[in-house]
Amino acid sequence: MREVAIVAAGMTKFGELWGSSLRDLFVEAASEALTMARADHVDAIVVGNMSAGQFVGQEHLGPLLADHLGMAGTPAMRVESACASGGAALRVGFLEVASGACDLVLAAGVEKMNDGGDVTAVLATAADQENEVYHGITFPGLYAMIARAHMTAHGTTAEDLAAVAVKNHRHGALNPKAQFRREVTLEEVMASSMVAEPLRLLHCSPVSDGAAAVLLCPLDQAKRYTDRPVKIRASAAATAPMALADRKNLAFLDAVQLSAQRAYKLAGVGPADLHVVEVHDCFTIAEICCIEALGLVEPGKGRDAARSGLTALGGKVPVNTSGGLKSKGHPVGATGIAQVIEIFEQLRGAAGDRQVKNARIGLAQNMGGSGASSVIHILERV
Amino acid sequence: MREVAIVAAGMTKFGELWGSSLRDLFVEAASEALTMARADHVDAIVVGNMSAGQFVGQEHLGPLLADHLGMAGTPAMRVESACASGGAALRVGFLEVASGACDLVLAAGVEKMNDGGDVTAVLATAADQENEVYHGITFPGLYAMIARAHMTAHGTTAEDLAAVAVKNHRHGALNPKAQFRREVTLEEVMASSMVAEPLRLLHCSPVSDGAAAVLLCPLDQAKRYTDRPVKIRASAAATAPMALADRKNLAFLDAVQLSAQRAYKLAGVGPADLHVVEVHDCFTIAEICCIEALGLVEPGKGRDAARSGLTALGGKVPVNTSGGLKSKGHPVGATGIAQVIEIFEQLRGAAGDRQVKNARIGLAQNMGGSGASSVIHILERV
Repeated sequence: MREVAIVAAGMTKFGELWGSSLRDLFVEAASEALTMARADHVDAIVVGNMSAGQFVGQEHLGPLLADHLGMAGTPAMRVESACASGGAALRVGFLEVASGACDLVLAAGVEKMNDGGDVTAVLATAADQENEVYHGITFPGLYAMIARAHMTAHGTTAEDLAAVAVKNHRHGALNPKAQFRREVTLEEVMASSMVAEPLRLLHCSPVSDGAAAVLLCPLDQAKRYTDRPVKIRASAAATAPMALADRKNLAFLDAVQLSAQRAYKLAGVGPADLHVVEVHDCFTIAEICCIEALGLVEPGKGRDAARSGLTALGGKVPVNTSGGLKSKGHPVGATGIAQVIEIFEQLRGAAGDRQVKNARIGLAQNMGGSGASSVIHILERV
Repeated sequence: MREVAIVAAGMTKFGELWGSSLRDLFVEAASEALTMARADHVDAIVVGNMSAGQFVGQEHLGPLLADHLGMAGTPAMRVESACASGGAALRVGFLEVASGACDLVLAAGVEKMNDGGDVTAVLATAADQENEVYHGITFPGLYAMIARAHMTAHGTTAEDLAAVAVKNHRHGALNPKAQFRREVTLEEVMASSMVAEPLRLLHCSPVSDGAAAVLLCPLDQAKRYTDRPVKIRASAAATAPMALADRKNLAFLDAVQLSAQRAYKLAGVGPADLHVVEVHDCFTIAEICCIEALGLVEPGKGRDAARSGLTALGGKVPVNTSGGLKSKGHPVGATGIAQVIEIFEQLRGAAGDRQVKNARIGLAQNMGGSGASSVIHILERV
C-alpha cells in the first residue's frame, strides 16, 4: 500500500449561507484546495454528502460537481454514511491513492441544509426508520437517551454537558470559518430552551450549510504540491447496531472504540500519543462519549474533561480546537472533511489563534447517526 | 496494486417484491454470496444505492445493513452515483482489496422502488435539478431527446429501437431472476403506449425492487472460496456534463467512451476481445448509444446491431444476455452489481440457457442518469 499525504485544503465558512447553492459551496471549497496546490486537474473526485436528494432534490452529485468544477470527464462518485459521509469519502480517496489507481484525488464533503426540506425529518433518516423513526423519535431524542444513560451510569450532570458547549464555543470564537464565533457561559447554556431533556438548545450543533475539500497524493509526490504535507497514518472505520435498543450499553459508543482500536493499530500509536483531536460533538454528550471511546479518558470519566481543562486549548489533549460541530457548525456531509482540515492545519502550524504548540500527531473522528458508524483518520506532520 | 477476484455472488429475483423490505432484499442477496463462498465474516461492506432516503426514508444504509446481516461492527458505507451506484460500489470494494486494506469485501447493490415515493420524481433527482428537472423534464423525456438526436444524426428508426427490446426480452425469458420472463414481438413494442416520443412503454426499463452482491478478495486467496474465480482486469469510471444542454453531441455518450478507453487500457484488451457484454439499457436507445461508445460497433452504426443478431445470444458479441435492465429489471442501486454477476456467471460457464460458449473475457458497463457517469469493469476467467 502506498503512503498517502494530504497536500492542500479548502473550506467555505460554515453557517446559514442563503446566497450559495450546494454546487456553489462545493466549487468554492474545491477551488481553494486546488489553488493551494497549484493543481488544475485531479484523477478522481469523491464527494461526501448525506442527503442532497432530500435536502435539495439532487442525487448524482459526483458528475454534477465535477462538471461545475470544470472537470467533466473526471471519475466522480458520492459516498454516504449519514453524518460520517465526509470521513467515508476521505477513506475512499485514501484508497484511490493508496492502491495506486490515482495520483491526485479531491476528497470533499458538502451539505446544503437551509434550502428546503424538513431538516429534523431528513436527519432522522440516518436512524433506523422501521424501529426508531416510525415511532416518532428524532436525533435530539436519541442523544437525550444516550445522555440519560450516561448520567445514570456515571453521575454525569447537566452542567458537565454544558461545559462541553462552553469549551467548544470558546474555541470556535477563534475560528474565522465557524458558524458561531462567540463564547457562551455555563449559565447561558443552562438557561437555553429545553429540546429533549436533558439536552437544551446550546447542547445541540446547529443546522448548517458548508463544504470542505482536501487533496490527496502519494507521500513521495507530496513535495510537488506543498512544502508541508501531512501524512495519513491510519484510515479506519467501524459500525455498531443502528437502533439504540439493540446496543449492549447505551452510554458507550462501540463503533467509535472499534474504529479507534483499528486506527491505533494501523498507525502504531495510542491515545497518549495524540497532540490534537477532533471528535464528533453533534450534541455535547457525544463529545463525552467519544473521548471515552477513543481512550483519551477512562470509560465513564469523560464528564470532567471539558471543565477541568484537559480537552481545552492549552490542556493535555485539546479536543475540537475548531469549535467542533457545536460552534463551527455541522453541514453533515462536510463535517468529516472539515475535522480533518482542522488537524491538517494544526499539524502544519497554520491554525492561527487556535494553534496547539508542536502538534505532530492528530486524530479526526467522524460519526454517523447515533453512533452506528464511525470513521477515524490519524494524521502526522512529516 | 493487488490483483482482485470475484469469488461468489448472490442476487434476489428482480421485480415488484411487495413482501420484502430493502433490508430483507440486501440480506437475501448477501447471504447467498456468503453461503457460496462458505464465509461468515467480511472485512468491509460497500453498498450501492441511489436513493433509499427518498424511496423508503432511510439513509445510512452501511451500518443498517451490516447490522441486519449479523455483522454489526464491520466497516460499511454506501456509495451513490445514481443508476451507476452498483458499479461505483464495486469499484470501492475493488480498491479496498487492491490497496491491501481488506482481504474479503462484500460489494452489494440494493433498491426498493415499489414501496412509496413518486418513483419518476425521485429518479429525476439523478438529472440536473436546477437546469433540467426544475423545468419539468423526467428521464423518459431526457432519453427521448437522445433518441431523437440519434434518429436525426444516423437515421435510426423506431423499429431499430424496438428491436433492442425484442432481443433483451428474448434473453430475459431465459433468466430465472428476471422481472419479465416473456418474449415480446416487434409489433407489441410498436403498439405499446407512447411515454415520451419516440419512446414507448416497452422501450423503458421497469420500476423494480432487488438486490445483488459479490464477494471480492485478492486473486491469490481466491481458491479458498471457489475453484472458479473471476479476475477483475479493469475498474474504470468517467463523467460527462450532467445537463444534456451542456453536451457537444446529444447522440453520443462521452462518459461511456471515456470510461471504456480507460478500462481497455488498464486491461490491455479492446472491444474485439470481448466475448460477452452487459450494457446499461435503461431505455432501448441507451443500449444503442452504449455499444457505439464501447466501440462494439462504429459510432452511428448501433441501430442495426440487435436486429442483425450481432448482439443477440449466438451473435458475435452477445449484449445483455441477462435480459438487460429492460427485461431483467432495474432496481437502480442493484443494477451495476447484477450486470457484473451476469458476466461472472457467463465466465464461469454457469449461465444456464443463456450461456455464451467459451466466454473468457467480459465487460459490464453501468451508467448514471442520462449518461453523466459511467463505471466499467472488465472481467476474465482464470
